[in-house]
Amino acid sequence: MNKNELTFIGCDCEYQDAEFVLFGAPFDGTASFRPGARFAPQAMRLNSRDGLETYSPYQDKDLADIRVCDIGDLQFAFGNPAAVLDIITQTTKTIVADGKIPVMIGGEHLVSLGAIRALAEKYSDLHIIHLDAHADLRNEYLGEKLSHATVMRRIWDIVGDGKIFQYGIRSGEKAELVWGKSHIYTHMFDCNDIETALKKTAGKPIYLSIDLDVLDPSVFSGTGTPEAGGIQFSDLIITLLKMSNSVIVGADINELCPHYDRSGVSTLVACKVLRELLLAFFP
Amino acid sequence: MNKNELTFIGCDCEYQDAEFVLFGAPFDGTASFRPGARFAPQAMRLNSRDGLETYSPYQDKDLADIRVCDIGDLQFAFGNPAAVLDIITQTTKTIVADGKIPVMIGGEHLVSLGAIRALAEKYSDLHIIHLDAHADLRNEYLGEKLSHATVMRRIWDIVGDGKIFQYGIRSGEKAELVWGKSHIYTHMFDCNDIETALKKTAGKPIYLSIDLDVLDPSVFSGTGTPEAGGIQFSDLIITLLKMSNSVIVGADINELCPHYDRSGVSTLVACKVLRELLLAFFP
Amino acid sequence: MNKNELTFIGCDCEYQDAEFVLFGAPFDGTASFRPGARFAPQAMRLNSRDGLETYSPYQDKDLADIRVCDIGDLQFAFGNPAAVLDIITQTTKTIVADGKIPVMIGGEHLVSLGAIRALAEKYSDLHIIHLDAHADLRNEYLGEKLSHATVMRRIWDIVGDGKIFQYGIRSGEKAELVWGKSHIYTHMFDCNDIETALKKTAGKPIYLSIDLDVLDPSVFSGTGTPEAGGIQFSDLIITLLKMSNSVIVGADINELCPHYDRSGVSTLVACKVLRELLLAFFP
Amino acid sequence: MNKNELTFIGCDCEYQDAEFVLFGAPFDGTASFRPGARFAPQAMRLNSRDGLETYSPYQDKDLADIRVCDIGDLQFAFGNPAAVLDIITQTTKTIVADGKIPVMIGGEHLVSLGAIRALAEKYSDLHIIHLDAHADLRNEYLGEKLSHATVMRRIWDIVGDGKIFQYGIRSGEKAELVWGKSHIYTHMFDCNDIETALKKTAGKPIYLSIDLDVLDPSVFSGTGTPEAGGIQFSDLIITLLKMSNSVIVGADINELCPHYDRSGVSTLVACKVLRELLLAFFP
Amino acid sequence: MNKNELTFIGCDCEYQDAEFVLFGAPFDGTASFRPGARFAPQAMRLNSRDGLETYSPYQDKDLADIRVCDIGDLQFAFGNPAAVLDIITQTTKTIVADGKIPVMIGGEHLVSLGAIRALAEKYSDLHIIHLDAHADLRNEYLGEKLSHATVMRRIWDIVGDGKIFQYGIRSGEKAELVWGKSHIYTHMFDCNDIETALKKTAGKPIYLSIDLDVLDPSVFSGTGTPEAGGIQFSDLIITLLKMSNSVIVGADINELCPHYDRSGVSTLVACKVLRELLLAFFP
Amino acid sequence: MNKNELTFIGCDCEYQDAEFVLFGAPFDGTASFRPGARFAPQAMRLNSRDGLETYSPYQDKDLADIRVCDIGDLQFAFGNPAAVLDIITQTTKTIVADGKIPVMIGGEHLVSLGAIRALAEKYSDLHIIHLDAHADLRNEYLGEKLSHATVMRRIWDIVGDGKIFQYGIRSGEKAELVWGKSHIYTHMFDCNDIETALKKTAGKPIYLSIDLDVLDPSVFSGTGTPEAGGIQFSDLIITLLKMSNSVIVGADINELCPHYDRSGVSTLVACKVLRELLLAFFP
Repeated sequence: MNKNELTFIGCDCEYQDAEFVLFGAPFDGTASFRPGARFAPQAMRLNSRDGLETYSPYQDKDLADIRVCDIGDLQFAFGNPAAVLDIITQTTKTIVADGKIPVMIGGEHLVSLGAIRALAEKYSDLHIIHLDAHADLRNEYLGEKLSHATVMRRIWDIVGDGKIFQYGIRSGEKAELVWGKSHIYTHMFDCNDIETALKKTAGKPIYLSIDLDVLDPSVFSGTGTPEAGGIQFSDLIITLLKMSNSVIVGADINELCPHYDRSGVSTLVACKVLRELLLAFFP
Repeated sequence: MNKNELTFIGCDCEYQDAEFVLFGAPFDGTASFRPGARFAPQAMRLNSRDGLETYSPYQDKDLADIRVCDIGDLQFAFGNPAAVLDIITQTTKTIVADGKIPVMIGGEHLVSLGAIRALAEKYSDLHIIHLDAHADLRNEYLGEKLSHATVMRRIWDIVGDGKIFQYGIRSGEKAELVWGKSHIYTHMFDCNDIETALKKTAGKPIYLSIDLDVLDPSVFSGTGTPEAGGIQFSDLIITLLKMSNSVIVGADINELCPHYDRSGVSTLVACKVLRELLLAFFP
Repeated sequence: MNKNELTFIGCDCEYQDAEFVLFGAPFDGTASFRPGARFAPQAMRLNSRDGLETYSPYQDKDLADIRVCDIGDLQFAFGNPAAVLDIITQTTKTIVADGKIPVMIGGEHLVSLGAIRALAEKYSDLHIIHLDAHADLRNEYLGEKLSHATVMRRIWDIVGDGKIFQYGIRSGEKAELVWGKSHIYTHMFDCNDIETALKKTAGKPIYLSIDLDVLDPSVFSGTGTPEAGGIQFSDLIITLLKMSNSVIVGADINELCPHYDRSGVSTLVACKVLRELLLAFFP
Repeated sequence: MNKNELTFIGCDCEYQDAEFVLFGAPFDGTASFRPGARFAPQAMRLNSRDGLETYSPYQDKDLADIRVCDIGDLQFAFGNPAAVLDIITQTTKTIVADGKIPVMIGGEHLVSLGAIRALAEKYSDLHIIHLDAHADLRNEYLGEKLSHATVMRRIWDIVGDGKIFQYGIRSGEKAELVWGKSHIYTHMFDCNDIETALKKTAGKPIYLSIDLDVLDPSVFSGTGTPEAGGIQFSDLIITLLKMSNSVIVGADINELCPHYDRSGVSTLVACKVLRELLLAFFP
Repeated sequence: MNKNELTFIGCDCEYQDAEFVLFGAPFDGTASFRPGARFAPQAMRLNSRDGLETYSPYQDKDLADIRVCDIGDLQFAFGNPAAVLDIITQTTKTIVADGKIPVMIGGEHLVSLGAIRALAEKYSDLHIIHLDAHADLRNEYLGEKLSHATVMRRIWDIVGDGKIFQYGIRSGEKAELVWGKSHIYTHMFDCNDIETALKKTAGKPIYLSIDLDVLDPSVFSGTGTPEAGGIQFSDLIITLLKMSNSVIVGADINELCPHYDRSGVSTLVACKVLRELLLAFFP
Repeated sequence: MNKNELTFIGCDCEYQDAEFVLFGAPFDGTASFRPGARFAPQAMRLNSRDGLETYSPYQDKDLADIRVCDIGDLQFAFGNPAAVLDIITQTTKTIVADGKIPVMIGGEHLVSLGAIRALAEKYSDLHIIHLDAHADLRNEYLGEKLSHATVMRRIWDIVGDGKIFQYGIRSGEKAELVWGKSHIYTHMFDCNDIETALKKTAGKPIYLSIDLDVLDPSVFSGTGTPEAGGIQFSDLIITLLKMSNSVIVGADINELCPHYDRSGVSTLVACKVLRELLLAFFP
């Protein structure tokens, strides 16, 4: 008999055989409204076991047929965002060095910065596709440079102009949206125009970062900063399927906050998004 | 003065005068994820009294004008699905023998089997229209033949090929969906094509089974196994109205799980669906 | 240092400088199903501080640029609707006399009567645009004349035939809907036809009353009497934007019930609706 | 087959045979903090069916052996406390005239006034034993004479000095507590001294009014105005048992607020208190 | 890197080196009121990681210093109690045959029968100490022999008269309590007299079964059938410490129902009880 | 008319006239288990308005008779504990320099360090009385020196040996408890022995820090790290009253986490503790 194991459903491949490596980044230390995204990765693993099938009728593919290793959650200190990001960067580098594709479950959105720092080192022309309700382009938030409200600005510091494509944005300060017009591509309110991003990034290495609050709160209420007026579940699935021929070199989904998910539905939505993401991007 | 009575709103006709007989089947013993559907019938009765009007603006009809007798909940043992089904079958037979149409409130989906066994005895060419997120076509589930995940397979055992029409399906094992292609009619994801089923069943006796998780979880989160990507409330109402000229000989709605209905909305949705169903089918 | 202040975000203009005056009417004494709307105004103020931006990407306007004074909640007795209405009427008269536009946060829908009594005194041809799931046209409810189920009938007592335009209605007794056909304009189920009302009220003083249960419960579950089949958030925003050239002399939003808003989303939806309303109507 | 019946468990005796008559008074219109006690009687009936045994190990008696008829809930208007009280008084008079003992389930505490008005007419020396966290002795509350915060003062208006015995009080204005010292007997914080009341009321007709918030919120959180520092469940049971030789001519339990009873425990506590009360007082 | 592991905190010893083997029995199929105990073992593992220390200040011992292997949850079918019990019995036999002590986390109370069947085979004079709010001595429950309401009767079928010692009982049918007087030792309401059981079982092999609803609902509300009037947390800890010199050959804790544990406290209480139990009994 | 004000009930004295200054420190960035204490101060203010009387029957004193100014919440960045502590220290210094006594509402326990740094500067022999479930004496927590798990160690860095008196401790690592024996006074499990601390601190300036999780979770479940086995509400009140002759120069209550306070009771308990604290210490 063995000790108890808890992986995301269908992601129990051995590390050496895996093509995708899944890990949790349970950090929510800069959450500006309601914290708790730290509980997301384990909640998703747990609920995936009974509440999700491995088979996708959208893609006619099965998690049982692809090779993903879920290595569990990284161990973080509390109250030190810089130290947290270093751990994420280090782990991502190892996974990439081993020739595998990292897929991260946040935590809050700031964790994306840790993974992208590692990937940008390897891929000099890394592009970012970013689905979110919030622009996250402030230069500082209440005096801090590292925040889930500044994360795309910090990523821009690394990748520079013309590399970031945002969709679904429907909340922000006027100033950050104005700044964004000169530096990144922002499509407001929905993902209808994702083809523009796909054309411009064709053949380039892409990191996909999904802040799940891009979904309408009716679909996904269990998040720190819900914003009315978002996209539907089917919009998100269609967007993922359109990206299935892109060169995805890393991805994350973030900002599920299970303790605000009273009905349990948001956690299951996140699980299904992760299933579709893995199936869409697996070669 | 009399003892306290609790019927679904507008369903207080005396049994002998009733055309429809409403009863609860508070069983959830094979629920594979989150049990609790046993609490649905009484929760619906209770909430219908203050949270539902008897008048439908969709149909311009009123529950006060039709004759339904709500006889309350059947009494079940716990832990014995076969015994539960026998009680349901026996009750349904009595209602049918008395020349009335049975309408059952589950409980989990397995309860449909009990009612259909009784009706299939009377109507040799009974057809089934089945609205659900899940195919429920497994032959066994974890070694058991009687389960809410196998219920449509067990019903197929009775009615055979070409009699079952499924709509809204968006979750299952690959194997059961493949099996279904040879034996039943399955329309994936929505109910748009309900006309196909209605044409093929025209003039035939129909049992309608509505697993309420066919609705999107944004509309109906209070259920055991919510599945993102479902239909809207208006889709379900329209589907019901389209069936108003069909020969409905029995019906059920199932899988409301009130303890997961934190906002109370799912229970009210279920109440309204039941009102529309009763009004649509009443001659 | 000063004492703690809690205004709706961006509504901290001094009273004498304000063009709009915001106040809370925390009354829910005639709620027929689930009371608790009394907690709405303070919950909205509190959540607006961290969960809402002052800038609207829908209108490219900012609450920081307009002049609203939030004077807090009125103080009411419990159990005496007539006394409550008198206090609301008195406050509204003062605001109007000071040349400012009153915007009220309910509380239950009955509070609209208090504000409209004051405005109808000043504007003899006051028109009402009313967004709601419920007709609220009963003459009495369980023997009472003052009720959230009779409020539009009481308002009709004041303004008379042809002045009230209802949208989104999807629940009521047959009798009140029939009565309505001879006395007011009712558009069932949605707000698609708002242009009709806008044409007929062009140039006239309008009071806008939004019962938030006009929204579908998937979007807005935190209300006393949720009704499936409602409009989406974007429908409501579009309707508000279409009214931005109308002569709005007063407005209210009502029937948020925070204790039934388990996820906190409904409170944030209400906050965003209020932001868009203030921005749309500010000259 | 009959229509569905929902009585409190074991209280299904026919009216003409009953010694006790149980009824619900679902009113909460003057609740000063969190309303919702209107839902208590039906929630108690529902939960008693599965969550309570009829047998009491405390008294070695069984509800099955006594004769109680549960006639259900009275029908009230909303927003008119005086009309509500009249209905309660009228019902109580009928029950008393039929030679039976009324036991009422609130609703908020004001409902006690309705029952006591009827009983005081029959019993000129009616005494009141009152278990509560709050003194409820204000003469007015925010200008209103009829309120759950004034109910004992209104009862004193009827029965006069020396007839009211309060226990468990731990919250109030200073003024009302000072007033109380000259007119009623108040024992602060607990029920330890109930013998004093029993001695002084020996042989006299007693009405027992239990505001369930006399219990500590750790035991009973599901109430409108929870007050830390209350009595334990066993204290309340012991107090009831001590009263079993008293001449109880009427009783009520009130202020259960099921929608604040997230765990369901408070509703079950209320059910058990009612069982023990009925068993203790049945001759 | 390895796959994600989830053991109860401090219970990650390898199986071959372990003295205690911990496993989950996630079954709740005969729950008569509120099901959901199936979710207990994984919820306890998850919450133990962040919400529990390995060190006990009560015993000055540390889980880090003892050898426990948590092998995870058994896999059960739904709807077949007999098959579930067989799996438990088989697992227990293997653990016992390997010279280790089984400690089971329920699930509902019926699971104890599976473990005791295995142990009674090895230990002919097995004694049972049973802490519970409910006697669980019915011979049948609604016609079924296997139920959480009959489990101690079924265990008595195996071990016979004089072997079962019950504490904390405060709910049951009169008939089962009368039956109990001739066949087992029952101490009502509390555990004060545990010394009697310990004296009579001194030197004998003991199975300890803790139905966590023996605790008062104020301490432990997250259970299927909460019963007011129970013991305090410190009473349970003291009882466990008193048993530290007994010959414990197996143990279980059961009836945590996490979905009714809104505050998360009950899950943490269960974790702490398990820690104290393991530390008290480890040689 | 004025803008809306929200002070803790009875704490609306002008700053210049106040003897006590109340402020919120809404920080929870190092919470190791469940964050959310940031929401405590505003939740307490809001609930105090309707759910708390200003009069204390325990002390026969009234908040209306003392002079407290509630200046609201400090404004913090997220993710930078050092910056947060600096703001708290600065504010405390100002209050002390103005000759007033600071009373802080956390936030997590780390905030105490900020206030004590300011007071220790003024009072060279500052003593600390610390009520808590957790020792908080680790030197580091997951590599960080500033944490709610290290706060008393950091305070010891300032005040040194023999100045800190802990009560109610029931959770910790063995190592920190051993360390504590040589440097501070720790009384495990309860506050019974508070007289020892009071004797040793007689006449000395005392800072009182109450981590509300010292209370048993049955009384106070709404906290980040609930620990079974705590003290009762009356124990805490008695402890406060015993300190009424001490020289209190500052105080805080912390670790209320309103989003885990499903019933609202914990917030009201915190309000009542704050009332009693203010009344006990006011000269």
